[in-house]
Amino acid sequence: MSGTLYGLGVGPGDPELLTLKAVRILQESTVIAYPAPEVGDSLARSIAAPHIPRGRIEIIVRTPLIPDTFPAYDVYDRYAEEIAGHLEQGRDVAVLCEGDPFLYGSFMYLFERLSARFEAQVVPGVSSLGACAAAAARPLVSRNQVLSVIPAPLPEEELEARLRAADAAALVKVGRHLPKVRGVLARLGLEAAADYVEHASMADQKVMALSDKDETPAPYFSMILVRAAEGAPS
Amino acid sequence: MSGTLYGLGVGPGDPELLTLKAVRILQESTVIAYPAPEVGDSLARSIAAPHIPRGRIEIIVRTPLIPDTFPAYDVYDRYAEEIAGHLEQGRDVAVLCEGDPFLYGSFMYLFERLSARFEAQVVPGVSSLGACAAAAARPLVSRNQVLSVIPAPLPEEELEARLRAADAAALVKVGRHLPKVRGVLARLGLEAAADYVEHASMADQKVMALSDKDETPAPYFSMILVRAAEGAPS
Repeated sequence: MSGTLYGLGVGPGDPELLTLKAVRILQESTVIAYPAPEVGDSLARSIAAPHIPRGRIEIIVRTPLIPDTFPAYDVYDRYAEEIAGHLEQGRDVAVLCEGDPFLYGSFMYLFERLSARFEAQVVPGVSSLGACAAAAARPLVSRNQVLSVIPAPLPEEELEARLRAADAAALVKVGRHLPKVRGVLARLGLEAAADYVEHASMADQKVMALSDKDETPAPYFSMILVRAAEGAPS
Repeated sequence: MSGTLYGLGVGPGDPELLTLKAVRILQESTVIAYPAPEVGDSLARSIAAPHIPRGRIEIIVRTPLIPDTFPAYDVYDRYAEEIAGHLEQGRDVAVLCEGDPFLYGSFMYLFERLSARFEAQVVPGVSSLGACAAAAARPLVSRNQVLSVIPAPLPEEELEARLRAADAAALVKVGRHLPKVRGVLARLGLEAAADYVEHASMADQKVMALSDKDETPAPYFSMILVRAAEGAPS
């Protein structure tokens, strides 16, 4: 019998924000795979580290990360075949995913290559959306407001149009796009209502009003929360 | 010393989707509070039940739930005072929240009444967004797509405008609004690309193509996932 492929959400950074289910599946899986840059450590593995038993087979899914591009698909073909080899041998494979696997996660590239051939299950995780709102001590969205989750790498004109139409917005993947995002928010009169959060739930978490954030570059895992009408019923 | 107020995300329904942190805080808190309708059981409590130790003081935050209205604020004034009494006595109070506390959660009404007077912490939880995407085995949003989370109670014209502009959308709080939502999606040619999920991660979870969902009423905890351009790079 073939093994099961798991997409395991490991949450936003704090190892205590793993779910009981993710911890159990880490205990039960023979093979653990996780994304990493071409050089350097895997954030997903470092989050899950306290819960990974010794002696597991580990697969480091290394993909070239060029800012604002997406990795070439043939990289995933190769890793999918390596994982398929284990599944065929009856081994369960848990793929660690930062946050939630199906919210901007690269797990989908493995899932779409393997889910037709093997039993595949996604274990949802705490997303950085909730973690950033918790860190900023402000509700993300309430009542009948629409929440727009907007990737900051989008072109400036599209950012502006999306923000203009938003009730409440979370700008994700801010990183080096901070000056562009700040400019758009200022033009729309929304900068004063925006909070900046980096590394939510991690030891080096930072939270501040966007207006207090200096011009030093923001990390990739940073977010800006905006509400068009603070506290107003929709 | 005063106690701490916790907003505890208990996740979408499966008790195994609580985080380790939520379980720890349940063990450590003397008082547990949770929302419930005027008559009947609390869903949040039933999710957390396996993790609630015996002998805790429990506060049932009963609010009248009239479809598509929001509870009168003075109800929360009263419960906030009851909770404040415990906090003043040095007791920690954990308020259970379905999904994530700051994503459409009623916890915000207690938070805004108490967080200036007492230490308050929000523990993010797995939201129904990730759970529904996992159940439907489809990514919610990918690459640089914008995700729109749209409450189904909105007027038909606004639903249509929001969906027309969306890359990927999650329609939440579907319930009795199913026929209206279905009509809008059909007009926009999006019905075929939509999945219907109810009670994600729970024992009675149901997942189907929206076109296979019959005309029987949908429960409040149901969601419709839509992607304008399936799998297309943004």
